[in-house]
Amino acid sequence: MEDYHGMWAELGLDLERHDEFLAGLGPAYQEIYLNQESRPKGMEYFDFVTSEVHGLRIKELLELKKKGHKIVGTFCVYVPEEIVMAVGGVWVGVCGGAQFSIPDAETVLPRNLCPLIKSAFGFMEAKTSPYYRVPDLFVGETTCDGKKKTWEIFENYVPFYTMEIPNSKDYMGKRLWLEEVIKFKEKMEMESGISITPERLEEGIRAMNRKRKAMARFFDLRKADPPPVSGKDALLVSQIAYYDDPERFTTKVNVLCDELEKKVQKGMGVVKKGTPRIMISGCPFALPFWKIHHIVESAGAAVVVCDESCVGTRYFSNMVDEGLPTLEDKLKAIAERYLKINCSCFTPNEERIEEIARYVKDFKVDGVILFTLQFCLTYSIEGVRVQEALKGMGIPVMEIETDYGEQDIGQLQTRIEAFMEQIS
Amino acid sequence: MEDYHGMWAELGLDLERHDEFLAGLGPAYQEIYLNQESRPKGMEYFDFVTSEVHGLRIKELLELKKKGHKIVGTFCVYVPEEIVMAVGGVWVGVCGGAQFSIPDAETVLPRNLCPLIKSAFGFMEAKTSPYYRVPDLFVGETTCDGKKKTWEIFENYVPFYTMEIPNSKDYMGKRLWLEEVIKFKEKMEMESGISITPERLEEGIRAMNRKRKAMARFFDLRKADPPPVSGKDALLVSQIAYYDDPERFTTKVNVLCDELEKKVQKGMGVVKKGTPRIMISGCPFALPFWKIHHIVESAGAAVVVCDESCVGTRYFSNMVDEGLPTLEDKLKAIAERYLKINCSCFTPNEERIEEIARYVKDFKVDGVILFTLQFCLTYSIEGVRVQEALKGMGIPVMEIETDYGEQDIGQLQTRIEAFMEQIS
Repeated sequence: MEDYHGMWAELGLDLERHDEFLAGLGPAYQEIYLNQESRPKGMEYFDFVTSEVHGLRIKELLELKKKGHKIVGTFCVYVPEEIVMAVGGVWVGVCGGAQFSIPDAETVLPRNLCPLIKSAFGFMEAKTSPYYRVPDLFVGETTCDGKKKTWEIFENYVPFYTMEIPNSKDYMGKRLWLEEVIKFKEKMEMESGISITPERLEEGIRAMNRKRKAMARFFDLRKADPPPVSGKDALLVSQIAYYDDPERFTTKVNVLCDELEKKVQKGMGVVKKGTPRIMISGCPFALPFWKIHHIVESAGAAVVVCDESCVGTRYFSNMVDEGLPTLEDKLKAIAERYLKINCSCFTPNEERIEEIARYVKDFKVDGVILFTLQFCLTYSIEGVRVQEALKGMGIPVMEIETDYGEQDIGQLQTRIEAFMEQIS
Repeated sequence: MEDYHGMWAELGLDLERHDEFLAGLGPAYQEIYLNQESRPKGMEYFDFVTSEVHGLRIKELLELKKKGHKIVGTFCVYVPEEIVMAVGGVWVGVCGGAQFSIPDAETVLPRNLCPLIKSAFGFMEAKTSPYYRVPDLFVGETTCDGKKKTWEIFENYVPFYTMEIPNSKDYMGKRLWLEEVIKFKEKMEMESGISITPERLEEGIRAMNRKRKAMARFFDLRKADPPPVSGKDALLVSQIAYYDDPERFTTKVNVLCDELEKKVQKGMGVVKKGTPRIMISGCPFALPFWKIHHIVESAGAAVVVCDESCVGTRYFSNMVDEGLPTLEDKLKAIAERYLKINCSCFTPNEERIEEIARYVKDFKVDGVILFTLQFCLTYSIEGVRVQEALKGMGIPVMEIETDYGEQDIGQLQTRIEAFMEQIS
């Protein structure tokens, strides 16, 4: 790997603390990822990307910046990537997945707050990640209370734009959301100096649909018994979707899928046939948060076959209609597609419960882990009714609420083992 | 007091547990309220109302129900009481203020959730309060994540209607809110079978304005040094505003104010002149939650002179324009007035920070307690910037985050004493 300290210094990073953070990642990755058996060869690309997460990708983004492309840091799958692409910009998901930066956040933000938000804030505030130094603009959204109010503080540090997400998907909610998508388009035009033509937007729509189709194809292959890829590896691919070059990522996912298809035809998988199949459903797992998948899949006792979260099905579900005649039609289609995402911040959100039930059937799920990041109220409360629905289907359910720390690992291991026994 | 067990039995209450709850209230009220010195005579009415909280008021509501008046249980100051009045209905605030019902709630809801929501849910679920048996309809709102998602469960138990509160007060937010107010009007017409005429609505507007003016007059009198009424007594009056008969309440508050005005003219107060003056700002104190005011005002070390919360200034700030020509104008005026409430669920919410700064000056506040109910993210995160602003004004600030339990009372006493010393 190149020595990126010069680049990091120019970005104004706290080099010492940043080194400290990276030093922890290597060994963790070895233990969690590289020690796996029967890994598809196609995962090598994603290992490489992860090893260069603060290096080569940042270098690429800086080179794009120099050429005038706008880098947009985002915190939510509702922010339409097509629109960023249409001005030649780059959409980069910057939710935080590391415990490392949380103490820094807690010098400003309340402790009782989602670790994903604290982690992002801490990296930004303490300058310990290049992803909070490179973007020209950060785009937040009013999904949950934690994010909605944290952006009011975040925006005092960096250029920030907030999209309003309605609380409901009813008539007024749809109108408000369409307005927000149009306003975001205007914001991106203003930021970039580039006018979004129907052609530019169509290109973005098709590029995003290609990426989504690749991810949908990838998840489809996990339906096999045994699955040809581990849940941990699938999670990693889903996490990298958020910040890798879209076209290159799409290509590499398809290459991986070609390999996985052959494995599935030969009945080759990463675990024995009949290994308990788990779906993890709820809050997202931002890079590099791998704790739960690692515990579940250790000792080969179970395999995660589906992730119903922003870093999973909610990322790629549904395409945007292609080839619509006017710019307005395309923007409407974008607004429609994004509003189909079934985040628990909406009320009602029955479609998510139906979606989960469908995934249980399609992925032949034996047990569901309802995962909530600590202090996330929308997913924990919605989990009450999701659990009811799953119990009604006779599906074993386990609830996990946790943060990014390591204190509860032993306890989680015990509980998860017991859950696996219950399933078997 | 009459024996209400027959009435409670007819309401389907769990009589034994309900008795258990009431048995705790009496001694608490004696210690916290009746032991105060120099109480205005006008507080006797409010003592009486509190002593009959589950008795006479419930009896009154049941008699109104028999005559066809609709009883509407509400959880938020955004629900327009004028509209309920305009169909001859009665608006009753039913947020929970007691620890007693929380264990019941925790058999269904997640533990990490605002005590106000858990308390209300627990009383409803376990049938230990008549306020969740009497209403014909409950009206919730999408203010915070906790409430927004809890209503999805609440509505499986009782008739429920949810109003959507926008995340912003911008153009689309105003339109959405006006739509919601109109929809609520239609809902109340449907529920009651009564058509809301301009005259009926004007009556409601004027009745509510009278109640608000009485409360504003009451709070104005707290600006005196020394204040003629304790913060605890002011809190009680603010709490009773939520469920007493509006006209009677308005009359009794004005009678109390007549007495307080005389006291102020004579320089008579409940504490010595120059006693540290505290404002408590943030989350509401639902009946019978008195913990913080009691600790602050014990030993006469300080007096609460202003409450910036839903059970305080946010309840009565701003009138609705009277005498507008059409029904549509009146509904618009109602929507406008309610949208001025500066709840932290809005982003941005700069007006609240400005409002707090104004109260600090007007009420000659020496120190501010920023009060957050446990797990309330909007107030705790907004508190970061409120604190910044107050520090900029040189005003001492203390943050309290707590639930309804008693475990932290000693710790709070220590911290509050230290804060008082810091102020003096």
